[in-house]
Amino acid sequence: MIGYPTKKKNRLALAEQKSSKAHRGMSLEDDVNKTNSYYLETDRAVIFKKPTPIQVVEVSYPARNKAKITEAYYRQASTTDYNGVYRGLPIDFEAKETVNKTSFALSKLHKHQLDHLINVHRHGALAFLLIRFSSLDETYMVMVESLKRFLNNHDRQSIPYDWIKEEGTLIPYSLTPPVDYLTALDRIIRKGVNCNEEKCCP
Amino acid sequence: MIGYPTKKKNRLALAEQKSSKAHRGMSLEDDVNKTNSYYLETDRAVIFKKPTPIQVVEVSYPARNKAKITEAYYRQASTTDYNGVYRGLPIDFEAKETVNKTSFALSKLHKHQLDHLINVHRHGALAFLLIRFSSLDETYMVMVESLKRFLNNHDRQSIPYDWIKEEGTLIPYSLTPPVDYLTALDRIIRKGVNCNEEKCCP
Repeated sequence: MIGYPTKKKNRLALAEQKSSKAHRGMSLEDDVNKTNSYYLETDRAVIFKKPTPIQVVEVSYPARNKAKITEAYYRQASTTDYNGVYRGLPIDFEAKETVNKTSFALSKLHKHQLDHLINVHRHGALAFLLIRFSSLDETYMVMVESLKRFLNNHDRQSIPYDWIKEEGTLIPYSLTPPVDYLTALDRIIRKGVNCNEEKCCP
Repeated sequence: MIGYPTKKKNRLALAEQKSSKAHRGMSLEDDVNKTNSYYLETDRAVIFKKPTPIQVVEVSYPARNKAKITEAYYRQASTTDYNGVYRGLPIDFEAKETVNKTSFALSKLHKHQLDHLINVHRHGALAFLLIRFSSLDETYMVMVESLKRFLNNHDRQSIPYDWIKEEGTLIPYSLTPPVDYLTALDRIIRKGVNCNEEKCCP
């Protein structure tokens, strides 16, 4: 099957490409990694991205003490991408990007990632999702508590943008660090995790 | 240079091989992974081994949707191997094995691993080292606080076995889980982290 450039899928791919170029040329992952380095340098938190799990099948040794992997495959991760320590608490989150302007497709969040977030939260971690609407250039933090509420009350394949805008916390873009999610988290903690309305906790 | 079987290095390698076979055929890493799975299943803690960081250079696509990595290299990790959540607290540790019966060579613990342990502990994590003397079939937990004290007071390339026996906590071998380090940690927490003597906290 030839993929004509007018195909919906390809148009979307093109839109994604365009948008990510418009968006300062940086992916959410790049921004989060820079932010984590900034937090580490300023001693605010110790948060790292976990390496991508890879199944190594064959390794050759072209030079002494130098291993070259010649056959390997990507594996499914069993956890989220980011975790660490903040203010004496465990912190754990996943970062997702979408070009869609009206909703976030839940298919982007794998079951094991959601299960892991719910699990670590139950054990006492600060657990959340960072969602970037790259076409709108907006990044939101959605705590796992809110996410669970949404999933319990809605039988949907996606989370509407309006719900995320209402229930999540917008993370303003700054230069250093690019995604200052810990400041957003501080505000949420101050307000009480289950309350995202300014009016209940002024 | 031909490596004669009588060379010291080769004799050591042989000893290592023998010992790991004698030791129930399981490495400390295997034992810790099994233990973590057990903790996860019994809902006691959420602790995972981080994947080994690999720099992917070339990927081929022999079949649709199947990526085959054809050139990649191992990278140096910036953190320890294990972390997670236990009793609402961040937990972080490294696991090391030695065939030496009288000491643990500090060269086995990389600087970035030690720095990371000290860093997460300062931020509030339970941080420690698991050291297995595989020839003796003994595994010890050494809290980062004790380790720091040792490093501050001794200018040595290795930690003597006797010091580890005295300052660390022996983790008895059990079948399920093989290295029940959380029970050892509970005892240390109960006793107060800086006290490893039964007599001070009966």
